[in-house]
Amino acid sequence: MADHLAEPDDVDLDQTRIDAVLAAVEAEDRTRLDTLLEPLHAADIADLLEQIGSSDRRALLALWSHEIDGDILSEISEGIREEVIDSLPREVLTEAVRDLESDDVVDLLEDLEQPQKDMILEALEDADRVAAEAAMAYPEGSAGRLMQSETVVAPEDWTVGQAIDFLRKTDRLPDQFYHVILVDPAMKPVGYATLGRILSAGRDVRLDAIVEESFRTVEATDEESDVAYIFNQYHLISCPVVDSSGRLVGVITIDDAMNVLDEEHEEDMLRLAGVGDEASVTDGAFATMKQRLPWLVINLFTASLSALVISRFEATISTILILAALMPIVASTGGIAGTQSLAVAVRALATRDLTQANARRVVLRELGAGVLNGIGLALILGFGAWIILGDPLLGAVLGMAMIVNQIVASLGGVMVPLTLERMGLDPALASGTFVTTLTDVMGFFAFLGLASVMLV
Amino acid sequence: MADHLAEPDDVDLDQTRIDAVLAAVEAEDRTRLDTLLEPLHAADIADLLEQIGSSDRRALLALWSHEIDGDILSEISEGIREEVIDSLPREVLTEAVRDLESDDVVDLLEDLEQPQKDMILEALEDADRVAAEAAMAYPEGSAGRLMQSETVVAPEDWTVGQAIDFLRKTDRLPDQFYHVILVDPAMKPVGYATLGRILSAGRDVRLDAIVEESFRTVEATDEESDVAYIFNQYHLISCPVVDSSGRLVGVITIDDAMNVLDEEHEEDMLRLAGVGDEASVTDGAFATMKQRLPWLVINLFTASLSALVISRFEATISTILILAALMPIVASTGGIAGTQSLAVAVRALATRDLTQANARRVVLRELGAGVLNGIGLALILGFGAWIILGDPLLGAVLGMAMIVNQIVASLGGVMVPLTLERMGLDPALASGTFVTTLTDVMGFFAFLGLASVMLV
Repeated sequence: MADHLAEPDDVDLDQTRIDAVLAAVEAEDRTRLDTLLEPLHAADIADLLEQIGSSDRRALLALWSHEIDGDILSEISEGIREEVIDSLPREVLTEAVRDLESDDVVDLLEDLEQPQKDMILEALEDADRVAAEAAMAYPEGSAGRLMQSETVVAPEDWTVGQAIDFLRKTDRLPDQFYHVILVDPAMKPVGYATLGRILSAGRDVRLDAIVEESFRTVEATDEESDVAYIFNQYHLISCPVVDSSGRLVGVITIDDAMNVLDEEHEEDMLRLAGVGDEASVTDGAFATMKQRLPWLVINLFTASLSALVISRFEATISTILILAALMPIVASTGGIAGTQSLAVAVRALATRDLTQANARRVVLRELGAGVLNGIGLALILGFGAWIILGDPLLGAVLGMAMIVNQIVASLGGVMVPLTLERMGLDPALASGTFVTTLTDVMGFFAFLGLASVMLV
Repeated sequence: MADHLAEPDDVDLDQTRIDAVLAAVEAEDRTRLDTLLEPLHAADIADLLEQIGSSDRRALLALWSHEIDGDILSEISEGIREEVIDSLPREVLTEAVRDLESDDVVDLLEDLEQPQKDMILEALEDADRVAAEAAMAYPEGSAGRLMQSETVVAPEDWTVGQAIDFLRKTDRLPDQFYHVILVDPAMKPVGYATLGRILSAGRDVRLDAIVEESFRTVEATDEESDVAYIFNQYHLISCPVVDSSGRLVGVITIDDAMNVLDEEHEEDMLRLAGVGDEASVTDGAFATMKQRLPWLVINLFTASLSALVISRFEATISTILILAALMPIVASTGGIAGTQSLAVAVRALATRDLTQANARRVVLRELGAGVLNGIGLALILGFGAWIILGDPLLGAVLGMAMIVNQIVASLGGVMVPLTLERMGLDPALASGTFVTTLTDVMGFFAFLGLASVMLV
């Protein structure tokens, strides 16, 4: 990435700088620390705090906590946020949270324990505290938690000139705003005009003559995932939020929506892999164990199903011992095929590309792909086994079991998440375990079953 | 989602509407089709075209192709874009592409064959064609391909009033712009002012007095993934693009960056699952087979490694047949643990939360989690096997193999992607196969090896 100007935060975080920071902390050299950290963007300082070890972090905060501002606080990941807040002197915290927009305050409050919450609420100015408490009254994961209450509105009959004069007079505008929202006398939004169109229109043009053709609002109780979807689908840059009676209560901007999308991605990926969705690199070994062990224990039991299936065929295996060595091939290739089909389906459900309208077609497509992959793999494995082990019948059993299991895998990969979705559950959750259990059990059963019929 | 106004595109796509559209197509009722499709947003029409079957799509386009505009074209997924473009009358296509911003034209051109490319280039006005060709000269996946060449600039010594007067005079402004970029006489960007600050400042305020503190540019040859990262990290809304001599050549807006992030995420998820990263629900069974078979064949060979390991222990298995039934438990639980560790590591590498600075700490964390999970699972499995099978020594062998394999899994899950990253390769690519091969082979080897020493 190219940075062409010697602007304040045009410096990026790299290993050299991290090493220099750690050396300055070690030497308790506050001036050097200031010089090193001051040019960094808040997001980079937050990353630095996350990436260094906890004793270095404590030492750094002890030296430098007076410089922590609101932007750094809201960039810091949940994993270490409480720790950092605890280390701040009261007056630094007060100063820091007063700088923040209301949506950032809410984001900060969400993951804190009650005493810290109270401390931050007390630090806010009255109007900001009321706004934060109002937002916190909306359910977790709702649009109301995501919005900032600072909005820029104008009556629908204003002209461009009136709007500009009003903006010039207003003391405290939001840091980022992209539209002026037109409201009726009941504070219901009726449209919005982009700042670009306001700037380029004449002073006497009425705002309602330059509103965007396309205009959407969301309700404060709508789920944040639906909000993120409409930002992405309709290329919104900001979206007014209304209460149940249609009155404007806030606005959501694209950076918040982008954050939600990013978190949902992470959730899908981690859930598919059977990890609690709050996993972070700052977690310790014990926290990591707690996130992962539940799924591993579940898998222990589902894997025992495979063991049960295999144990039914002990007589067959004792007659033809090579079956024990070959059976994981069919099961494992099925697991991979199931995972492939599953990843495509979960992704398509998340982006709403897989819907009721095409579910049947996609399932048939998977069936077709399963048959084709099964035949391809069966030919390679069947002939391979025949040539290497010299037994055409064993090759045929391997091939047939492979075809059966590939079909089960690709169908299971799409049917399991579709069924979970239809039941109102997260299609990513538990799908992986379901599907690999299915392909393991079917893989062992098909192979050993066919072998016991055809080879013994 | 709540839509409170009867605005043009405030209608969403649902199954009822899709069914009605298909009925209108069936009846060749063009008026009805217009009524149904006209209120939809271009993105929803594109989704509709993607979700219906290919014969329905052909019939719909035959009836309705005159209404396809540039926005719909640029929303349509690559999978069916050529098909749709081929169905359009020449004059419709010409009209459609002339409406588009230069970045959307480039996006459209990228995936087309030469004859279609030429057709579109010819349809453009001269200035637009030159801009599109200039952008296409930058490498695929670079900032130059992502940017729009339409920029809004002002000399650094202008006042707010001069800028507003200039914007009011300018005929054709970009659809979306969020900053006025200040340039020096050599067209090098020196800062930018948000439209919000321009609107709220007095006419005689100099633009360079209200520029944003933080200002970044990217080079046209920078990789789009780096661009997406800095948008996300630094909460940018737009970013000027410069050529190698620092001259302004375009601007990238957040919707493009959001798109890149979304695609990268899809890529990670699909690659981890061993699917070609261009998989889409519109692909047919044959295309799907082609994306998936290569990984399945690779897995066939790696799974044969497990078979080879097991076959070395045939004598042991023939003595204690129950080993054959139990051995997949250790291997499969290891596979899940490896996948968990891998998903966390790949995600953290993608978000740059896992870096050189904390790699050692994260690896040690994984080691710790592996030991803890291993002990937990070993206790459950070991005592379970003792109680059910009545053999404490067999339980001990299962437990010890489990501990070994859990450690291998959690270390492998983080070391494999870290190593790939260090080699300059995509950490998501092939990691899954590596790690599950490792845990399978180690699982079978540890369990059968220990059994052959302790039980026989």
